[in-house]
Amino acid sequence: MNIRFYNARILAMDGDTEVTRGEVWVQGNKITYVGSTAHIREGTMGRENAPQAWDREIDVEENLVMPGFANAHTHSAMTFLRSYADDLPLQEWLKKQVFPMEAKLTGEDIYELSRLAILEYLTSGITCNFDMYFHPEMIARASVDCGFRTVMVSSLNNFTSSLGEMEQEYLKYNHYHELIRYHLGFHAEYTTSEELLRGVAALAEKYQAPVFTHNSETRREVDECIARHKMTPTAYLDSLGLFRYGGGGYHCVHMAEEDIRIFKERGLAVVTNPGSNTKLSSGIARISDMLKEGVKLAVGTDGPASNNCLDMFREMFLVTGLAKLREGDASAVPAEEVLKMATVGGALAMGLSDCGCLAPGKLADLIVIDLKQPNMQPLNHIAKNLVYSGSKQNVKLTMVNGKILYEDGEFFVGAKPEEIYEKANRIIKRMAG
Amino acid sequence: MNIRFYNARILAMDGDTEVTRGEVWVQGNKITYVGSTAHIREGTMGRENAPQAWDREIDVEENLVMPGFANAHTHSAMTFLRSYADDLPLQEWLKKQVFPMEAKLTGEDIYELSRLAILEYLTSGITCNFDMYFHPEMIARASVDCGFRTVMVSSLNNFTSSLGEMEQEYLKYNHYHELIRYHLGFHAEYTTSEELLRGVAALAEKYQAPVFTHNSETRREVDECIARHKMTPTAYLDSLGLFRYGGGGYHCVHMAEEDIRIFKERGLAVVTNPGSNTKLSSGIARISDMLKEGVKLAVGTDGPASNNCLDMFREMFLVTGLAKLREGDASAVPAEEVLKMATVGGALAMGLSDCGCLAPGKLADLIVIDLKQPNMQPLNHIAKNLVYSGSKQNVKLTMVNGKILYEDGEFFVGAKPEEIYEKANRIIKRMAG
Repeated sequence: MNIRFYNARILAMDGDTEVTRGEVWVQGNKITYVGSTAHIREGTMGRENAPQAWDREIDVEENLVMPGFANAHTHSAMTFLRSYADDLPLQEWLKKQVFPMEAKLTGEDIYELSRLAILEYLTSGITCNFDMYFHPEMIARASVDCGFRTVMVSSLNNFTSSLGEMEQEYLKYNHYHELIRYHLGFHAEYTTSEELLRGVAALAEKYQAPVFTHNSETRREVDECIARHKMTPTAYLDSLGLFRYGGGGYHCVHMAEEDIRIFKERGLAVVTNPGSNTKLSSGIARISDMLKEGVKLAVGTDGPASNNCLDMFREMFLVTGLAKLREGDASAVPAEEVLKMATVGGALAMGLSDCGCLAPGKLADLIVIDLKQPNMQPLNHIAKNLVYSGSKQNVKLTMVNGKILYEDGEFFVGAKPEEIYEKANRIIKRMAG
Repeated sequence: MNIRFYNARILAMDGDTEVTRGEVWVQGNKITYVGSTAHIREGTMGRENAPQAWDREIDVEENLVMPGFANAHTHSAMTFLRSYADDLPLQEWLKKQVFPMEAKLTGEDIYELSRLAILEYLTSGITCNFDMYFHPEMIARASVDCGFRTVMVSSLNNFTSSLGEMEQEYLKYNHYHELIRYHLGFHAEYTTSEELLRGVAALAEKYQAPVFTHNSETRREVDECIARHKMTPTAYLDSLGLFRYGGGGYHCVHMAEEDIRIFKERGLAVVTNPGSNTKLSSGIARISDMLKEGVKLAVGTDGPASNNCLDMFREMFLVTGLAKLREGDASAVPAEEVLKMATVGGALAMGLSDCGCLAPGKLADLIVIDLKQPNMQPLNHIAKNLVYSGSKQNVKLTMVNGKILYEDGEFFVGAKPEEIYEKANRIIKRMAG
């Protein structure tokens, strides 16, 4: 499909957050032109580069075309536990509600529950996710069937998966489908033995590959690691050689100076999950300090059991809002920085250097934001509007890999939403029953 | 108009947060029936109470009918400053951006900018607002013209309005239109002289009326009041007799034990504004403590210059999320309590005892929530879904005083949104130019 978006405001996220006017061309799964219409008319950007015919020409009506959001940490299939066990202390939530229910999940369940999450990603303008969960085959199938882009990461720990499985998955899913990639990873320091961790480090060395994990989410996790190893999780994992080829950490709420230094030196990405950290009372990450230090930053929703929604607008507000509260400074972490984290920053953290901004040659993962809604008016500053007053309600269209998967409230993912909802309800009823 | 909502899930908020099934009848501006359809068929609730003919029968398709949200503190007309001056230290924001711009506002501007806010309230399921701003005539006209319900409160201070004006407005706007009410109030302790405050107390005594004000929003405000009067703002204002007939405080972030005791004893309402307190780095209110003490609680968005959006879903998540962070307890302030604050609690704080829940005889201020969206699935717990994963995108219909003002993205407020947007943009352009 060749699709032309014209009469558009454009937030390309290719360096700054300036909004320009013009058009965006999509040919196949790639962006082929981003620029002014005048430019085309005057011939400096020749019509010769346009396709013979457009399959569709979309008048954006001066709304905004921008890159989709990269949800850089989630557990998609946990949709079944949304609002199933809230307002509980963390340990009770995990041990009495989450773990026993997860034990009952089948592969087929994970397929359906992942599709439910993908529907929600699309409503929030999210065009790719970094997913840590069991049954990678079912996660990958759900994404490919919907047309969604997913980077998977192993959740290896003492109870789940093995080094052999992870290596097989690494080799398989990086050559499985253009929408799917896979990274080495493990659940967390506190659930994974040193022997396993050394094994992960050996695989990282073998494939010169980055490694991702939950890191320093709670104070208790950090304290217990220090008690065990006399080192913070970051320092301990780094000492085992896990981050020689980069990677990153999810959450990273309780970070010492030394941890931030390691992240910076190794080029590791911090994926912040402020919604989850708020709801589970884990704390507020040091985003302001990490931004100043130049640490790579990305944003994730975390799973729907702990958030409970998969909404990058809420996460973006929380990234800057919580930083402002933490620092006691209303100027901390400006909106423009948050927008970078949620788009190009997330894509880079996931290894998707071909996503996250609008430019010729990049993959066509983009969204149209409806500016003609009261929460976006007046148009004093579009980038700040997105972060401070934006909402799912503003997402008019979501395109992944050149295909429109969501437009004006309708989904184009190869299945009816009602069927996916019904299946999700049936799954939780079966488990709870 | 007589409107019947049938095939509905119903969250009546009349005591608990249980969801039932059935129908809701609206006749004129009142609710006349809330209950099961079987009940009607079996004749215990006779058809004789139904009107001869319905003007409209709405199949709710198993979506949710519930009371609208009460936005219990805002400055609607500040829409013009949305995203005009963010990411600035509080004092710089106020003195360099807000005050100079506000000085340029005309009454006509306030009419247009209030209408813009009303559009946004409707998209968020808000059916009434508690508005503190200048030019009450224009605020009231905007609300009446749109069909929206507004309780105004004086922003009297050393620079604006006078006791005489406030008394006139109090008498006028409580007999102006069924959609309009007016409360005595003043801007804040730090902007209002003791002489004026004593005058407000005298008016409260004269009319046996409640009094509302900004209270203890920032640490600095509290410290400076203590330095001036050797009392917290709450204790100082109470000592002047301002709260003899009730009332309440907006923000109430930095509250001492003694302040909470006064609020409880006087039956004062705390209107919490977590979005604004986050964005302006004011702090986190002691909602958990106040809830335990039985203080009346309500939720407000504050004005769009400091929030920047008028979204009760975001506010509801923040009320509980920030309480969880503050207390270090993921079970703090359960979702059900937040829902009460945002509906019936808000209505009571504003003196609208005829709003905030669905019951025969109550005013027909209600909303329909679309449950057939991915963020609301599965239907494990609808009340928790509303608070933890709800979004503006779920608001299908907003009815105020028996009239549908918003349905499926369309507004019925007597003006085209595009015209209101254009006027808002013209106003800020004129001021900034």
